[in-house]
Amino acid sequence: MLNKNDILEIRKDFKFLESTNNYIYFDNGATTQKPKKVIDGVDNYYYNENGNPHRGAHHFAIKSTEVYEGAREKVAKFINSSSNEIIFLRNATEALNLIAYSWALNNLKEGDEILLSIMEHHSNLVNWQFVADKTKAKLVYLYLDDKMQITEEELNKKLSAKTKLFTITAASNVVGTMPDVKEFIKMAKKKNSGIITVIDGAQYVPHHTVDVKDLGCDFLAFSGHKMFSEMGIGVLYGKEELLNSMEPFMYGGEMIEYVYEDHSTFLKSPQRFEAGTVNVSGAKSLGDAIDYIEGIGSENIFKYEEELMKYAYDKMIELPYLEVYTTPVEKRSPVISFNFKEAHPHDVASILDNYNIAIRSGHHCAQPLHRYLGINFSCRASFSIYNTFDEVDYFLNHLEDVRRLMGIGS
Amino acid sequence: MLNKNDILEIRKDFKFLESTNNYIYFDNGATTQKPKKVIDGVDNYYYNENGNPHRGAHHFAIKSTEVYEGAREKVAKFINSSSNEIIFLRNATEALNLIAYSWALNNLKEGDEILLSIMEHHSNLVNWQFVADKTKAKLVYLYLDDKMQITEEELNKKLSAKTKLFTITAASNVVGTMPDVKEFIKMAKKKNSGIITVIDGAQYVPHHTVDVKDLGCDFLAFSGHKMFSEMGIGVLYGKEELLNSMEPFMYGGEMIEYVYEDHSTFLKSPQRFEAGTVNVSGAKSLGDAIDYIEGIGSENIFKYEEELMKYAYDKMIELPYLEVYTTPVEKRSPVISFNFKEAHPHDVASILDNYNIAIRSGHHCAQPLHRYLGINFSCRASFSIYNTFDEVDYFLNHLEDVRRLMGIGS
Repeated sequence: MLNKNDILEIRKDFKFLESTNNYIYFDNGATTQKPKKVIDGVDNYYYNENGNPHRGAHHFAIKSTEVYEGAREKVAKFINSSSNEIIFLRNATEALNLIAYSWALNNLKEGDEILLSIMEHHSNLVNWQFVADKTKAKLVYLYLDDKMQITEEELNKKLSAKTKLFTITAASNVVGTMPDVKEFIKMAKKKNSGIITVIDGAQYVPHHTVDVKDLGCDFLAFSGHKMFSEMGIGVLYGKEELLNSMEPFMYGGEMIEYVYEDHSTFLKSPQRFEAGTVNVSGAKSLGDAIDYIEGIGSENIFKYEEELMKYAYDKMIELPYLEVYTTPVEKRSPVISFNFKEAHPHDVASILDNYNIAIRSGHHCAQPLHRYLGINFSCRASFSIYNTFDEVDYFLNHLEDVRRLMGIGS
Repeated sequence: MLNKNDILEIRKDFKFLESTNNYIYFDNGATTQKPKKVIDGVDNYYYNENGNPHRGAHHFAIKSTEVYEGAREKVAKFINSSSNEIIFLRNATEALNLIAYSWALNNLKEGDEILLSIMEHHSNLVNWQFVADKTKAKLVYLYLDDKMQITEEELNKKLSAKTKLFTITAASNVVGTMPDVKEFIKMAKKKNSGIITVIDGAQYVPHHTVDVKDLGCDFLAFSGHKMFSEMGIGVLYGKEELLNSMEPFMYGGEMIEYVYEDHSTFLKSPQRFEAGTVNVSGAKSLGDAIDYIEGIGSENIFKYEEELMKYAYDKMIELPYLEVYTTPVEKRSPVISFNFKEAHPHDVASILDNYNIAIRSGHHCAQPLHRYLGINFSCRASFSIYNTFDEVDYFLNHLEDVRRLMGIGS
């Protein structure tokens, strides 16, 4: 496992930590900080290579195309797919909306079912409500057991011949649950080989090696900014044949073949889904972020985060004044959601912020899950590779200060 | 008018020019280069202020919200609107698609007409074909006269009680035509007060002071990357009441009010249309680009570009081996489209590139316009504030080399 010195070396890559005097940033599930190399890569692009790709014969049109398509190659390799299966979008949310608009609206109808879990982020839930509303397909939810897991029994019970789309997060952004997505997809396809499977990888891809061929999913969505890239770039992976069978989503330049006054013909994936000027620097930023991750090793990253997570989790569940919602099953994502029994999460986050600790408070874009847990809001500490055991200790120590300042237990 | 020294000072702000040994970049209609201040602003954001906005109680959630909403304020002021009327999207293309999906699909029906011009960019044309196909509304085109203008007569002839949406570019990216958009909107609203007016400002906003209240348009779309900001950020302006009457476009986090298992309620504009993690650095980049423009003055920028344009245009129309498509009317955008009578535009661009001159060749995402002009492709030189008269001279001199190298006239 990466040791303390390794992590201290890694921390040097993040100028944010130095600039903010080592602020304890435990909000990595929302967005991560960026390595200097990623930021410099963007600057370098704009100072030396910037142009509008795909459209021109001059040096910078060609150069920017190379940069952009090079990033696409890198992403494709990162998840073991091919370039034509990688669509660059703004974020995971847009990716999940693209599936809703281009696939689901055109393929679902009354009587069909969309199977999803109660722990989905709004971005993988509200879009399906929209589809259900437009197509009259029905939403069916998978619920969690008392260990915050979805059992195979639950899945088998809810899967049916009517299930046409099955979607699930590979890692909950609240309870950390990491369902056995590969097995779940296999079960779904066994029930109905035509079922379309959609994996929300926003919280999973930043921490794990992903092989879409091995997973067998039809679609996978994730965001760059949660894995060290700049904001404004996300990815939809889709099986090539499926993508090419779909209607475009956005219409405009760069996705067309021929445009007449009354109709147009369209390019194949990925151009088909990338209308207008693309975000070259965003894509480059994600490509560089992937280089950064691969430089450390996805497995090393997750092993370390898992240990850090377990260290914090094991201490937090012993604190009698806390309720912890994160799954006790140790195969989980590095997020700990909790509440003080006697304090509002917003107050908790604000007080900790006074001690230079950034944690999230709110519903974490998962209101149905919170309602299922019987709460409205929670606090969340989420970890990344630059977080340390010392930071966790400091954080744990200051939980007592929250009690003191709120006058709890006095 | 800005003089030579002013421009040389301005050029110092663009590190790209220095890094590329003063490459002659005449592809500004596709994308502009970026002032160092804009690039530094993004870096500064990531090193000191980065967080996921809107959702948290900690310092960086708050700081990033301030940065993001501050940029929105700046954009709003720039076009004389208010913050709730400014939606940050990826680019102008997405803005025009948003109108198609959220307004047009829900409001148009068979018998209705969408009026647009033949000089529209694909991003303001293919989206309406999509709408026409789905709703059975009809597309009606405004054509150009021999001076590449749309006459009031033409507009009056095509406007009817059936016209429900009227859209037009404020500046053609090929022929430079700048219709009197304000007058056209007035004429449209007079014909039918309920008509919705959509202005594609992608080529106009970078060069002009815009006052949406004065224009009277319902929607205005533009892209940041064509006006000195980084890529991945664009703007939809819409009248607040209209925006709030529309269905959302993308569904997910940050745009919802309450989410239940079977339905959700949505926030008002602008959040209503900004699902998922927003592009804070992109928005900041656009805000800083606006500061940059205002530092020079929109009017100063355009006056200079207009002169540069006229200087190049007047010389180019005298060259017997060229065909120039740009409008002769001097109220025009700084783009000159042309062809060698005896050379393919791709070859022209490639040869000029060998002399370190970047011009565009192709259909410039305006195939119907090219077909209307009786051609397939053209060359385009498009100017920005950092271009010089010396560069134009150098470019003009090397047009002869194109002939020589192609063996034309020999």
